[in-house]
Amino acid sequence: MKKDRSRTNAPALSRRSLLIAAAGSAAASIGVLSGFAAGPGDRWDEEYDVVIVGSGFAGTSAAIEARKRGASVLVIEKMAVFGGNSAINGGAFAVAGSPLQARQGIKDSVEQMVEDMLKAGRGLNHVELLRVIAEGTRWAYEFTLEYGVQYKDVVLQFGGHSIPRTLQTTNNSGGGITVPLGKAARNMGVIFRNRTKLEQILQDSSGAVTGIVVREGHRFPDEDSGRLRRIRARSGLVMACGGFSSDVRFRTRQDPGMDNSLQSTNHAGATSEGLAALLRAGATPVQLDQIQLGPWASPDEKGFGMSPQFLQQAAFPYGIMVDIRTGKRFVNEMADRKTRSDAILKHKDEAGNPVYPVAFVAEEGTGESPSLGNALKYGVAHKFDTIEALAQFYGINREGLLAQVDRYNAFVKAGEDREFGKTFFKKITLEKGPFYAGRAWVKVHHCMGGVQINTKAQVIHMATGEPIPRLFASGEVTGGVHGASRLGSCAIADCLVMGRIAGENAAARKA
Amino acid sequence: MKKDRSRTNAPALSRRSLLIAAAGSAAASIGVLSGFAAGPGDRWDEEYDVVIVGSGFAGTSAAIEARKRGASVLVIEKMAVFGGNSAINGGAFAVAGSPLQARQGIKDSVEQMVEDMLKAGRGLNHVELLRVIAEGTRWAYEFTLEYGVQYKDVVLQFGGHSIPRTLQTTNNSGGGITVPLGKAARNMGVIFRNRTKLEQILQDSSGAVTGIVVREGHRFPDEDSGRLRRIRARSGLVMACGGFSSDVRFRTRQDPGMDNSLQSTNHAGATSEGLAALLRAGATPVQLDQIQLGPWASPDEKGFGMSPQFLQQAAFPYGIMVDIRTGKRFVNEMADRKTRSDAILKHKDEAGNPVYPVAFVAEEGTGESPSLGNALKYGVAHKFDTIEALAQFYGINREGLLAQVDRYNAFVKAGEDREFGKTFFKKITLEKGPFYAGRAWVKVHHCMGGVQINTKAQVIHMATGEPIPRLFASGEVTGGVHGASRLGSCAIADCLVMGRIAGENAAARKA
Repeated sequence: MKKDRSRTNAPALSRRSLLIAAAGSAAASIGVLSGFAAGPGDRWDEEYDVVIVGSGFAGTSAAIEARKRGASVLVIEKMAVFGGNSAINGGAFAVAGSPLQARQGIKDSVEQMVEDMLKAGRGLNHVELLRVIAEGTRWAYEFTLEYGVQYKDVVLQFGGHSIPRTLQTTNNSGGGITVPLGKAARNMGVIFRNRTKLEQILQDSSGAVTGIVVREGHRFPDEDSGRLRRIRARSGLVMACGGFSSDVRFRTRQDPGMDNSLQSTNHAGATSEGLAALLRAGATPVQLDQIQLGPWASPDEKGFGMSPQFLQQAAFPYGIMVDIRTGKRFVNEMADRKTRSDAILKHKDEAGNPVYPVAFVAEEGTGESPSLGNALKYGVAHKFDTIEALAQFYGINREGLLAQVDRYNAFVKAGEDREFGKTFFKKITLEKGPFYAGRAWVKVHHCMGGVQINTKAQVIHMATGEPIPRLFASGEVTGGVHGASRLGSCAIADCLVMGRIAGENAAARKA
Repeated sequence: MKKDRSRTNAPALSRRSLLIAAAGSAAASIGVLSGFAAGPGDRWDEEYDVVIVGSGFAGTSAAIEARKRGASVLVIEKMAVFGGNSAINGGAFAVAGSPLQARQGIKDSVEQMVEDMLKAGRGLNHVELLRVIAEGTRWAYEFTLEYGVQYKDVVLQFGGHSIPRTLQTTNNSGGGITVPLGKAARNMGVIFRNRTKLEQILQDSSGAVTGIVVREGHRFPDEDSGRLRRIRARSGLVMACGGFSSDVRFRTRQDPGMDNSLQSTNHAGATSEGLAALLRAGATPVQLDQIQLGPWASPDEKGFGMSPQFLQQAAFPYGIMVDIRTGKRFVNEMADRKTRSDAILKHKDEAGNPVYPVAFVAEEGTGESPSLGNALKYGVAHKFDTIEALAQFYGINREGLLAQVDRYNAFVKAGEDREFGKTFFKKITLEKGPFYAGRAWVKVHHCMGGVQINTKAQVIHMATGEPIPRLFASGEVTGGVHGASRLGSCAIADCLVMGRIAGENAAARKA
């Protein structure tokens, strides 16, 4: 980690906020509806230098950095299982300028990664955060190696990235990162407590965060379950509580189309109450209606499943996706996620029911997909000896498909996709079977929006535009990094880099 | 106003919030950063049944409805002048099924207005609010007549509306509504207080709103100016404090492209502190990054100016807009605002500087534009005898323009725009001069996003999904009505209808 990010400027209170604090009169105020404030005179059930809400990529990274600086650290997790959504993601991590890229002769740079993310984000990105994150990926990668994370010896090409820059854990899961980081943190003395849900952020009369109220022994999703306890955060509170993709009530207020008819890839605990607590504490909401649909999900399984790693790492880069009614492609299969999801969602019949597109690839293109075996086993993907058999099984327009395959093969051989401009990093045609195919649809996957932070991971107050003292956030609960569309494998980048910065800065005021 | 909207259900507190309120411990908490709560035991400087923040369309409508029900009512306005942004808007009001439409043989319906607004809103709209608003326009129109508002005897066709349904005040200004409504409210006994800025919303331990803290004698934009005072709202608080189009800091966090390089049509007081106070009180943010650019603004004047009423009511419906480099049209001049603004914004040179399109119309098409005289006077529009002279003045590609004009004239005569599908409600060609032309660009105009309300104008708490007791909001500070793009003349519709509902329901608990 670079030296110039290693210090937290203690944010000064504005003249204005002090003036108001001095002028107002005090009154009792408790409860989730009304605010729940604690002054220095209140009793605490426990005290730590740093308290972290959430045990995913961002939370565990923050915990290690805070502990390394000598802080006492508590990580709370509302679910029974640690790791949050991070533990069930695909373990794909975009690193700008990794040693693996160098070894394979792939030229990359921080600037190029920023440019790719800005393009996908439609310019809504907070570019100062993007730069910090892209620059930090190289160091975050080294950080994970230090704690025993293992990556496969291949650099993957993910949609919307201009070059291959994605690494993947050997177990093809984010758990390949959260588990070793969590273990390391425990060994260093970080306390992890599950079934402990944040109820409220506490602030003193100056607005500085003093601690939190939690429900211990919480049994998700029973909101009233668990015993209320007050935990002091002497130096800093890090909110690393993730997105709200599974929160149907809140997500449909942001986008009415994201109702129960759409599944989510997320675990059930990806809800909005952490974000709500941040807003009550004065945080600035940013782009909350920018909610990502994953374009590589399958209607033939629940949750994240087997499809994303098959389509994203095989059928999309090295095969094609077609409309079954015409047999024709309809989008660059390697465009950013928003472009692809918007295109996929248009495939509906006159009654509005989905007409699932089908994506497929020749065997030669399946080498990088870790989930093909299970996808076949659970009927998410199927194997065919010929294009004709594939067309018949899925009811694809046969003539249209055969003509499309011929065109596509010619493009691959010529090295130029004259239909949709896909870059062919490997010359893999659809000439020789067997072929592997699956149906594609969208699922609610990632919340680009969240609370505003600065490059020190400080949460910015909406009314003052200044940092809220001792309040930090990182990962999916923050907004502005990814703009209108996050690129695949940039969530881990975001969470690890900003999580480390948050942990470091949250520990700065430790006693 | 329909009977079924005339009652406020007193929103019950959830079991959960009461449980939390009972379990927590109390503590002092003051100041804008930390929450500023008041219990029943605190002293108030003044007391009213209903307090209303903002004196525009929504605020004055709410004041009248509350006062009609016997409530004592205070309206506060932070600026020196009453009326807010409403007073400087164009006075155009979409009414579904007005007597003027009937007289002119125009068939309209609530359903058709809802459909038009949904299409422009890209389906992001909260459709239950849309229906209430479209249905309420007819009654809101009668309401304004009752208090002396005067409309011109013509029904206008505005972009994105499938038929002519827009009425306009005789003085071509929203002041034609806010002034008579404000006068009527005063006569009824409503107190109006200017230079009085909301500082904080106060809630009791159950979360119910009890009143507000204000700065009296405030001198905008000096945030620290004015004396702090506590005003009780016994029955209800109505937040009718408008949008944040002039708040460059906050709007650029939602969309970095909306920086100082873009002007706003709004007055300087259109800032976000009212929205911030609502979020601190637990309100649910909705679609805050949906910020509208007006596609009919001029780079040749500041603020709202003369251009919108010239382009929107003359050049766009009855003429064409062209790229000066080609002389060609590039968008349906009567599409919704987002479609047009997105298209206009693409006109930049290689260095990123605007290449302003030019819009023009023959004299025959200028009859409905109230601002042409002043637009000519201030150099925002210019008059030309021939297309050639117009092309020369603006540096438009001459051959391209002449060919475009010929094509357009043929479309008008055939009754079908085969280039962009514009509907020709009148057959006005570009054959006979003189012609009137102006340069077009975008300005930040309206915030579609805001806080979530229900059809009773109750503000919805983010954590519970239930109404926050005694807290109401209406108009531009609310979100979800207009989705991704508000149709022209639907702001007055929104503000008057939901303002009336808010005022009525806010008065329901008066002593």
